[in-house]
Amino acid sequence: MRKCFVLILFLGWAIMSTATAAPFAIIIHGGAGTITREKLTEEKAREIRATLAKAVNAGYRVLEQGGKAEDAVTAAIVVMENAPLFNAGKGAVFTADGRHELDASLMRGQDLQAGAVAAVRHTRNPILAAKAVMLHSPHVMLAGDGADQFAREQGLEQVENHWFDTPYRKAQWQRARQTASQSLSEELLDDNNPHKDDKFGTVGAVALDQYGHLAAGTSTGGMTNKHYGRVGDSPIIGAGTYADDRSCAVSATGHGEFFIRYTVAHDICARVRYRKESLKQAARQVILQELKTVGGDGGIIALDRQGKPVAVFNTAGMYRGWRTSNQAQPVTGIYEAGDER
Amino acid sequence: MRKCFVLILFLGWAIMSTATAAPFAIIIHGGAGTITREKLTEEKAREIRATLAKAVNAGYRVLEQGGKAEDAVTAAIVVMENAPLFNAGKGAVFTADGRHELDASLMRGQDLQAGAVAAVRHTRNPILAAKAVMLHSPHVMLAGDGADQFAREQGLEQVENHWFDTPYRKAQWQRARQTASQSLSEELLDDNNPHKDDKFGTVGAVALDQYGHLAAGTSTGGMTNKHYGRVGDSPIIGAGTYADDRSCAVSATGHGEFFIRYTVAHDICARVRYRKESLKQAARQVILQELKTVGGDGGIIALDRQGKPVAVFNTAGMYRGWRTSNQAQPVTGIYEAGDER
Repeated sequence: MRKCFVLILFLGWAIMSTATAAPFAIIIHGGAGTITREKLTEEKAREIRATLAKAVNAGYRVLEQGGKAEDAVTAAIVVMENAPLFNAGKGAVFTADGRHELDASLMRGQDLQAGAVAAVRHTRNPILAAKAVMLHSPHVMLAGDGADQFAREQGLEQVENHWFDTPYRKAQWQRARQTASQSLSEELLDDNNPHKDDKFGTVGAVALDQYGHLAAGTSTGGMTNKHYGRVGDSPIIGAGTYADDRSCAVSATGHGEFFIRYTVAHDICARVRYRKESLKQAARQVILQELKTVGGDGGIIALDRQGKPVAVFNTAGMYRGWRTSNQAQPVTGIYEAGDER
Repeated sequence: MRKCFVLILFLGWAIMSTATAAPFAIIIHGGAGTITREKLTEEKAREIRATLAKAVNAGYRVLEQGGKAEDAVTAAIVVMENAPLFNAGKGAVFTADGRHELDASLMRGQDLQAGAVAAVRHTRNPILAAKAVMLHSPHVMLAGDGADQFAREQGLEQVENHWFDTPYRKAQWQRARQTASQSLSEELLDDNNPHKDDKFGTVGAVALDQYGHLAAGTSTGGMTNKHYGRVGDSPIIGAGTYADDRSCAVSATGHGEFFIRYTVAHDICARVRYRKESLKQAARQVILQELKTVGGDGGIIALDRQGKPVAVFNTAGMYRGWRTSNQAQPVTGIYEAGDER
């Protein structure tokens, strides 16, 4: 009887320690582009790093408490959507007609369930609309007024379109109108920066939870001064977002047209699954070879079930941050690999 | 001198015969679903086969005359969009608010250029709008009013939304409203057919031209009684349509949500490219294994650079037709493989 009790205690301990030892991780991005030390003041860089760390920790807490990967992803993205620093949610760029149209998507790797919204105008947190589509709709993608209507019916907070306004984005839009150009996102600090190089601001997150499940999400305000109802890669499952427990989970940012044509997020996972490339190798091949060759600027963040964070970009910089279950603090990065604090 | 002349003649003949010997091919579909001999009268089946053959030949003529794969694809799809038999262009299903919202996409394998439109309401041939986006826009995907505006500015024929009406689709929509169900397309002949099995009508085409280039396109009216601005797989590059000269070209039809989540068109090409599966093997694996297991009804048509037509579906039937450069006439099929005339 006593032996049995000891055995049960030991088994209980073994199960507990296995459970707590299961690796978990989160990695996020806040966009990729021509981000250099010359363009970014130390103060602005600190502010961005602090917000990235806050977003990482929001997701990390969900994972630490035994939450799901998809909930960690949305927790992190909500922090970035609410921060005016990024081109997603509050702080989104202006369309040609002076409004905001927001896109987001979410996918989980366990059962390949996914949700996406395109061109929402009133849902405060588009990533939560994408989640509602994934969880409470038979559909994967809703667009325009219908997407807002669905989000409203799901009880998600609605705001006037001008709630997304920020003085910085308005000024950027007015400059873009003058030059009739379409900027993929922003010139964060340098007004003289040619528009073609200003492709950052989209946000995204990828998480691995304690149950070994992956999830990925992406949220964006699209292109400054966009018209014709242009849809980029962020709400496209396979392009801007993909998650499959059999391979990996990816969130992308950059020149969306290239990311759609190269089905970037799915292609990275396909290389891992079919060609048995490591996640890092697959991501480097797609971003640094295929996309770079054709001028497809941007980058990705990704995780596989081992939970080692991967961030690859072919631009001068990519706002990013991550934290794994063996890290006491988040790590954030802005410029080339190796600048992490 | 005489020898030289003979040599030139011979060389000319050799070049000509190489050029004309380059294989070319086109394959099309008009949707997959619960299409059985019991449900389809002989007369209706003949009408459908005749229209499929007409569409195949429209594309074939382009290829035979040395035209591009992308032009063959659009020529074939325009025939099906203009025919009221299919859920694309004229004859498209009704949305919840009694209108029509049409989606289409086109991609070519030579340089991975692509174009797509979602929720157009006034452009008579949505596939031509997708082509205009591919050829004359810096973007890949345009949605809603902006997509129609772009098509109009490109000189594409505009029609009133009710131009797409057909009595059959109107009756189908009214029945769907009564049962508040959303039908993915149509019950072509059997009014008592439960809605969940009525998933056909989307059209698509895949071509290989004499220059060895691939292209794929897809066009649809979406789901009967659809609301919330639901977007299916047809306008999603990677899901409903993909073309890459390095692997294959695919057009899909079926329950769009599954085709988006499984990135079906790109996944088939990824298996060919990375796992060196044959096109047929890859298509069967995705459609008959992965999708069938999770209830993802539908099918695909595809070509690789060898030009052997592949049609795979996990439903009772798929409207399809093809013609290769060594066939005198098109072949069409409706029910299981082997029923081709």
